[in-house]
Amino acid sequence: MERFQYHNPTKLLFGKGQLESLRTEIPRYGDRVLLLYGGGSIKANGLYEEVTALLADMQVTVVELSGVEPNPRLTTVQTGIDLVHEHQIDLILAVGGGSVIDCAKGIAAGAKYDGNPWDIVTRQVPVTDALPIGTVLTLAATGSEMNGGAVITNWEAQDKRSFGSPLTYPKFSVLDPTYTLSVPANQTVYGIVDIMSHVFEQYFHASENALLQERFGESILRTMMETAPRLVQNLNDFDARETMLLNGTFALNGTLSMGVKTDWATHMIEHAVSAVYDIPHGGGLAILFPEWLRYVGKTRPERIIQLGERVFGIDVNGKSDEVLVEETVQALQEFWTSIGAPSRLSDYEIDATHLELMAERAMVAEQIGQYVPLRQQDVSAILKNAL
Amino acid sequence: MERFQYHNPTKLLFGKGQLESLRTEIPRYGDRVLLLYGGGSIKANGLYEEVTALLADMQVTVVELSGVEPNPRLTTVQTGIDLVHEHQIDLILAVGGGSVIDCAKGIAAGAKYDGNPWDIVTRQVPVTDALPIGTVLTLAATGSEMNGGAVITNWEAQDKRSFGSPLTYPKFSVLDPTYTLSVPANQTVYGIVDIMSHVFEQYFHASENALLQERFGESILRTMMETAPRLVQNLNDFDARETMLLNGTFALNGTLSMGVKTDWATHMIEHAVSAVYDIPHGGGLAILFPEWLRYVGKTRPERIIQLGERVFGIDVNGKSDEVLVEETVQALQEFWTSIGAPSRLSDYEIDATHLELMAERAMVAEQIGQYVPLRQQDVSAILKNAL
Repeated sequence: MERFQYHNPTKLLFGKGQLESLRTEIPRYGDRVLLLYGGGSIKANGLYEEVTALLADMQVTVVELSGVEPNPRLTTVQTGIDLVHEHQIDLILAVGGGSVIDCAKGIAAGAKYDGNPWDIVTRQVPVTDALPIGTVLTLAATGSEMNGGAVITNWEAQDKRSFGSPLTYPKFSVLDPTYTLSVPANQTVYGIVDIMSHVFEQYFHASENALLQERFGESILRTMMETAPRLVQNLNDFDARETMLLNGTFALNGTLSMGVKTDWATHMIEHAVSAVYDIPHGGGLAILFPEWLRYVGKTRPERIIQLGERVFGIDVNGKSDEVLVEETVQALQEFWTSIGAPSRLSDYEIDATHLELMAERAMVAEQIGQYVPLRQQDVSAILKNAL
Repeated sequence: MERFQYHNPTKLLFGKGQLESLRTEIPRYGDRVLLLYGGGSIKANGLYEEVTALLADMQVTVVELSGVEPNPRLTTVQTGIDLVHEHQIDLILAVGGGSVIDCAKGIAAGAKYDGNPWDIVTRQVPVTDALPIGTVLTLAATGSEMNGGAVITNWEAQDKRSFGSPLTYPKFSVLDPTYTLSVPANQTVYGIVDIMSHVFEQYFHASENALLQERFGESILRTMMETAPRLVQNLNDFDARETMLLNGTFALNGTLSMGVKTDWATHMIEHAVSAVYDIPHGGGLAILFPEWLRYVGKTRPERIIQLGERVFGIDVNGKSDEVLVEETVQALQEFWTSIGAPSRLSDYEIDATHLELMAERAMVAEQIGQYVPLRQQDVSAILKNAL
């Protein structure tokens, strides 16, 4: 392992009825709340009513900011910051999925900084202070409810960037599976792919002696594979929603990345694809991860074979590395296809037209990734194989 | 799952050279430190020199309390409390294993309470405040470095009790495998058994739908089984020490017990045995756990079979539950014997003389345990089978 610090101060409030915990948690931080949410889903499923009734009963002053975008925008972050200042907000309560929580992190850090919040998002200025954040999660996917990271889009600059800080971990997160029951089929599938991809990005690390972290990653993958088929068959399966919610949180709360240099190349490539074509993140990952595995498997097959044996139950005896990598990739692709995820860029009618542009955009540095560092020609090849 | 809160605020500072982090961590809490440690081991391995030199260089005021017992005593806790008051201590720095850290928790909570600290240990009085604690861990075993629990012995009352509080989690814990290299063979084996037993106590829970928690437990068990044989062959194996250290922490930091009713009957039985015969805790667990499994396997075999299949690689096809439980128990017993752990009470020259006394002492309630609740006659039977 590499030397590391692990510190995750977020309090999880997990299970049916945990919304009531807001009564004890919110007053720790004050009585002026910015209620942040996205589109209409929390109005459709009744959560909006529940939250606002509870806040009213608590006699908390509430300022609302709705309409946070699926890829939260800098302009929305700025609107939130202005509201915080205008109304002397004590706490941001993000009710929604990863986008709403990410937006809350941008507002929380930006409100304590005098300049343009984009300076923080682009890491030109470090986060030195932030407003407290609480969350009520409605979608198992990004893990943002228990980490300090956020992705913010600058629409004018056509740029999407991520930042993170120990100061932007939510103070508390309410995880009641009830509020995820109404997530539609396609979003559910994207969430499954996203969670499994978060595991892969950390499982394919470039460090030594991370036995426990790898096995923890395999645990999440196995649990997701047991649960996902049941869930896509019956979106109202409470137990499956509950399992997925806990898995999503632990897939990206720092447990898997303790002491290892994580990869994340596939996320960079996917961000480039969805910046050019505006496809769903989870859909992009389902297409790209198998091709990434095939490509890096040529130079570094060992952990892919371990994945195949331990997670997909592939018998490794008497087979070449090449065969084992291919069997593993096919098993993953078949699994994702079986739950309704896409497998080719052509499923989104993406052809080779902008392939080089996407490859170029993915290159946030000379090389990306750690398990096998990739240059632009490698990324082009992966994209080509994914057409 | 049951409804749960998960909140673990301890900052882990893991890896070689992390002692230097004391320079940034200690000043957050003040400049008057109670340095708490046990016997001579940290003097023998040079850690005492390193810590005191660093504290001197930091110009921190240090008050020392040494001689914390392997089962830390209430009298030592009281001595520590008196020192805290006399010297207006800001932070307790516990350098040692679980006993030293547990003692620090007793002092930390007791120093903020006007009455007898035994009131806190026996849970007659809740912890409402506590001094901050930092730790430098020297033994992978109890997990006390990342949880709020402590076991304190009242020698006069011949009573050993445990308490826990969100306020007694260490603020930070330095985990440098270097300081565990000098742990002798027997202590290393007891640590391995203790860590695996902590997993069992939570793996054998009485709740539904805890797929991820069970797989996380299996991850720790598999990792320990891969690592332990290497380690007992070569106590200086740094990578194996590193792995064991991280496993010990995660075996009892709240991750495995999220949303489940955990068992802990075997620990209660072992505490009764070692209260009467003063045998090592890890040795007692190695003897008792297999017999507990055999006994509860008669009424509830399912999770034992799951353990056998997933952790010990037992082929479950075409075998009766009875056979599968027995194969699993034997596999565990053989593994523990292979690394040098005892397997019978007679290994400690314990016979049936005080069997009923031990069974009686184990009964802290009408029934103990959750996976299969046990009455006194059940405990007697388990002890008899372990002779």
